[in-house]
Amino acid sequence: MSYDKAAAWLDEHEGESIERTLEWLRIPSVSTDPAYRDDVRRAAEWAEARLEACGVDAKLVETGTPGDPGHPIVMGECGEQSEGAPHVLFYGHYDVQPADPVELWDSPPFEPSVQPAVADGPGERFVGRGACDDKGQVMMFLEALAAWKETTGHPTGGVRFTILLEGEEESGSANLERFVNEHVDALGACDFCLVSDTGMLSRDKPAITYGVRGLTYTEITLHGADQDLHSGSWGGRAPNPNAELAKVLSGLWDDNGRVTIPGFYDGVRELSDAEREAWRGLGFDAGEALAKIGLGPEADEWGGQESGYSAIEREWARPTAEINGIWGGYTGAGAKTVIPAHASAKVSFRLVDDQDPQRVADAFFEWLRGRTPPGCRWELTDMGGGHPVTVSTDSSWLTAAKQSVERATGVLPAMIKTGGSIPVAGMLKALTGVETIFMGFGLDDDRVHSPNEKFELSCFRQGARSHAALIERLRGA
Amino acid sequence: MSYDKAAAWLDEHEGESIERTLEWLRIPSVSTDPAYRDDVRRAAEWAEARLEACGVDAKLVETGTPGDPGHPIVMGECGEQSEGAPHVLFYGHYDVQPADPVELWDSPPFEPSVQPAVADGPGERFVGRGACDDKGQVMMFLEALAAWKETTGHPTGGVRFTILLEGEEESGSANLERFVNEHVDALGACDFCLVSDTGMLSRDKPAITYGVRGLTYTEITLHGADQDLHSGSWGGRAPNPNAELAKVLSGLWDDNGRVTIPGFYDGVRELSDAEREAWRGLGFDAGEALAKIGLGPEADEWGGQESGYSAIEREWARPTAEINGIWGGYTGAGAKTVIPAHASAKVSFRLVDDQDPQRVADAFFEWLRGRTPPGCRWELTDMGGGHPVTVSTDSSWLTAAKQSVERATGVLPAMIKTGGSIPVAGMLKALTGVETIFMGFGLDDDRVHSPNEKFELSCFRQGARSHAALIERLRGA
Repeated sequence: MSYDKAAAWLDEHEGESIERTLEWLRIPSVSTDPAYRDDVRRAAEWAEARLEACGVDAKLVETGTPGDPGHPIVMGECGEQSEGAPHVLFYGHYDVQPADPVELWDSPPFEPSVQPAVADGPGERFVGRGACDDKGQVMMFLEALAAWKETTGHPTGGVRFTILLEGEEESGSANLERFVNEHVDALGACDFCLVSDTGMLSRDKPAITYGVRGLTYTEITLHGADQDLHSGSWGGRAPNPNAELAKVLSGLWDDNGRVTIPGFYDGVRELSDAEREAWRGLGFDAGEALAKIGLGPEADEWGGQESGYSAIEREWARPTAEINGIWGGYTGAGAKTVIPAHASAKVSFRLVDDQDPQRVADAFFEWLRGRTPPGCRWELTDMGGGHPVTVSTDSSWLTAAKQSVERATGVLPAMIKTGGSIPVAGMLKALTGVETIFMGFGLDDDRVHSPNEKFELSCFRQGARSHAALIERLRGA
Repeated sequence: MSYDKAAAWLDEHEGESIERTLEWLRIPSVSTDPAYRDDVRRAAEWAEARLEACGVDAKLVETGTPGDPGHPIVMGECGEQSEGAPHVLFYGHYDVQPADPVELWDSPPFEPSVQPAVADGPGERFVGRGACDDKGQVMMFLEALAAWKETTGHPTGGVRFTILLEGEEESGSANLERFVNEHVDALGACDFCLVSDTGMLSRDKPAITYGVRGLTYTEITLHGADQDLHSGSWGGRAPNPNAELAKVLSGLWDDNGRVTIPGFYDGVRELSDAEREAWRGLGFDAGEALAKIGLGPEADEWGGQESGYSAIEREWARPTAEINGIWGGYTGAGAKTVIPAHASAKVSFRLVDDQDPQRVADAFFEWLRGRTPPGCRWELTDMGGGHPVTVSTDSSWLTAAKQSVERATGVLPAMIKTGGSIPVAGMLKALTGVETIFMGFGLDDDRVHSPNEKFELSCFRQGARSHAALIERLRGA
């Protein structure tokens, strides 16, 4: 009964929920770019105030050091834990990816709006940076709290929640480990962590995600001469970091699309036949997914992908290496005949099973050092990452989440994995032993990290109701 | 006698010559960047006024089309051609390379100055963009005209000069060919072209350059998906243009440093034993040259260079491929886990002997198309270039130039080639039959195209005197 009232409240007050979401999206909380430092704090303060309005005892916790300050963590506490009910840690993040390339957005990334449905295209949706990742998904939870608060007088009743909203998820979570260590007793007392930063299988098929990939993120620079050189005088006479970097990085993959770094696959387990079978049963259409990003079926013949695995297996169960950025020399308009003093790349790895982010970074750097072009030198920076995580599929909390999604949406959620990384899950597991349940409502084409990021209102609705249903389910656990 | 007076005038008025040079260098005539369009014109107008002050009949000639205007050419005429004396075409350029990376300049690139000599380092010198390439070198000629004008009443006496100062040399000379074709009779009537845009063998050893390399300059973009992708969702599932571009470009060279494009070496001639012997006799020290750009002797083991040739042979007699710029994905501060929609590179080739710039561009593009990663497509732009040129070493005008340099400096100039490109020479030869004599006074470490470009006053002096001596020598030819 209480859930029904909460669900009805969500329907009746959806206009206000949307306005609140747009208000938060308007704050450009780009954590990786120092130019947005004040905006990141404003987004944290907004979340703190919103939690308070929902009846949560909230505060900002500063991170970093005086010499190298981080972005604040929003922390909230609510609920008296009743017999049999769990203590839940809700984790989300209020920071967003950079909006660039800004010129490719159809509307300004930080002037969010609700766009009408498109025939044979996306449904009615939020558009703006952070719409899905992760402000929109966090808002589903905050609106569920509001619904319970307004209909019962308390946001979570007999379920105790600790709420943790990070401000550095999109920039490597540099200060999260210290925070978790400093709060290891409080966080370790939680029964499980709940995260809404993952996706549905499709618009009509919600999902619980039971595995995320890990991440190692690096920036590498290859230095040649101590000055930019004229390619007429020096072409053929001095190493060109642009060319040498391309040559070295092109060796990261073999002809079967496997990463060539020795030891890279340590800790990777082969897929079981049962899992392969279960994933085939999800009916994922690789060609359709490629068509949505403008690629024809020939892209599935792309030589760089690891052979022997389907698209879904490559995303969920196989590690990869990617060049996220590369730059060197003259990149402006026109022609400049230069051999640059240095060239750089941002290279990251998605990890699975028991691969260790630090060991992968070390192995990559060792591999690079063994390939240093004569006369050149490397500048290598490990920018952090996170452990891969696979969640036990037989836990009672996971079952509670599945049942709640089914109650809220009428559809039994699929059990899926994701190729993305949610480093907090691996960190919590390692430091506190707490496991994470990923109950997210994004879609594959939500363009997270890309121009025109969106989050569909039907997903938002299913998510807010699922969170409301889960609160009731846990009260009676 | 007249030369001696002119040389004395140059000494006495050197302070004014320096001031004039600094004034011209202050105008940021960066031709490749549309933001500097007005400055380019100001630099042209400055040159026009200066030529007039030297007694030359000068004007600006517009280039390009109304829809796509170019930068003006400064054209000057002076002297009545007397019996036996030649009609000389002097070519120089008043545009300069971009100053970036600006942060690496010790002084602002367009606030030029004269810096004192450094012990065991460079001598007293102009510092600023264009100091050597090519404003400083053009000024040597203009000051020689001034010296003759002030000491005899006429800048060149019985030698007729047509003077042509281009404003697009650093941006591909897009409009020069049309200009030459439109003035083919006037230019074709010249006996030879004189260019000061090359170098000396060393501070104390002037040189005449009898060969320059040609150039093909391209910009290439590899397109993948129609949007930037999240590397978590798409890593291992969609082609990454950054990685695919690096892989394709890394195949441009084989293990012996030879360019792998079929037909690339068509028209390249093997060095004769005599030429190799002559070049060995120049005493060029490859290790010392590397040390000047911060590279140890191990850089001479650099694997990307063509095997079987000395450093000087690679620069003067062998073609090369260079990646002058490369960019794709996220290149800002911090981490962004993106697979970009596209990645780009500026790729150029230095050419020798009878290689044809257009055929090389065509062959490169054909080679790229044959390597298109499945699901990707190329966007290929030929940005122009120029033919390689080798000058007959037995012409009487070349002999006159050698004798003039010897008279002015007291040293018999070396006969050298250069790895740089001066496209006008190949174009003039092809369109008008006129050969070019390269009488330049730059040094290997003048940092042309790089931060802290310089031009030493001792070189400036030798050049101005050599031009003055050549005018006298040609009067009596």
